[in-house]
Amino acid sequence: MKERLTAASIELFERKGFSDTAVQDICQAVGVTKGTFYYYFDSKESLLMDIHLSYIDEILHHQVSILSDTTSSHQEKLFNVVFMLLHDIERKGASGRVFFREMRHLNAERMSVIVERRNEFRMNIERLLCDGVARGIFRDTLNPRVAAFAVLGMANWSYQWFHPAGELSDRDVATQYVEMILDGIRA
Amino acid sequence: MKERLTAASIELFERKGFSDTAVQDICQAVGVTKGTFYYYFDSKESLLMDIHLSYIDEILHHQVSILSDTTSSHQEKLFNVVFMLLHDIERKGASGRVFFREMRHLNAERMSVIVERRNEFRMNIERLLCDGVARGIFRDTLNPRVAAFAVLGMANWSYQWFHPAGELSDRDVATQYVEMILDGIRA
Repeated sequence: MKERLTAASIELFERKGFSDTAVQDICQAVGVTKGTFYYYFDSKESLLMDIHLSYIDEILHHQVSILSDTTSSHQEKLFNVVFMLLHDIERKGASGRVFFREMRHLNAERMSVIVERRNEFRMNIERLLCDGVARGIFRDTLNPRVAAFAVLGMANWSYQWFHPAGELSDRDVATQYVEMILDGIRA
Repeated sequence: MKERLTAASIELFERKGFSDTAVQDICQAVGVTKGTFYYYFDSKESLLMDIHLSYIDEILHHQVSILSDTTSSHQEKLFNVVFMLLHDIERKGASGRVFFREMRHLNAERMSVIVERRNEFRMNIERLLCDGVARGIFRDTLNPRVAAFAVLGMANWSYQWFHPAGELSDRDVATQYVEMILDGIRA
């Protein structure tokens, strides 16, 4: 039931927005009473927090497993992180878009938890780049902080335009992106 | 007066969101009656359209002037477009963030006007990249469509994190970004 309420609210938050979605709308979509909703969630805000936390926790967990794989190169790790984000769009696209659009509705305490994990995700990419510079894999003129924002920007922006059912696959786009990140576009 | 109403509403839409901002809130912020508001705007939605149109029209206009400059190279044009977006954050950051977050509140007709101009902005970058490939400036394995999305993603994402008052200037970030786009990060 909790999963059904969460899925229905993600769909409603994406389509109508958080503010214009009432608890009643969510209950109606699932076909339950408000009592059922409040059995699982304290409030609409705590449901939003739940959506955000499970989204960020899942991608963080997956990212850590990619980065701690001792058999893959720095370039492969970079590819795997970018591919993970693109691949997730089909399954988690709505959740991701709700995340970026509605997180200002979280209170300061909840927001700080989310911001900490978002920073962790970004810092993990920055550390991979830093380490690559130290090992001579990436150029020493690189600013790993700015480069991490660039990688995240490319990947996160794809939530706005990439359609998994389109002519390019998640793997095609990730391959193009990582080729560009590694070697640029110059002839 | 129109400019004051627009400025106050951008600030309120960014802080509280479009749905949670009433026309009354905007009037109160400026110190005018609702009559004054409705003298300039048909509705809150038409004000939102006004904000979006003036934002996209200004950056499109600037982009066209950059791209039609016959004295600059393809690389310089790319830098100038990325720099323009970063440089605009100080002055137009709130307007840009409201644009991306709230545009789903526009009706279908208004939305199609906005989407057309957004596509135009993106296609202008794609055409620059295509032309660069044709002239042998950019590598012929490049997919200009995906690369244009990547450039836009990096630049647009900076609206989420870049603070003009921080330790890096708009020029620093644009320089790092374009170095990365042109030559990648590999040592």
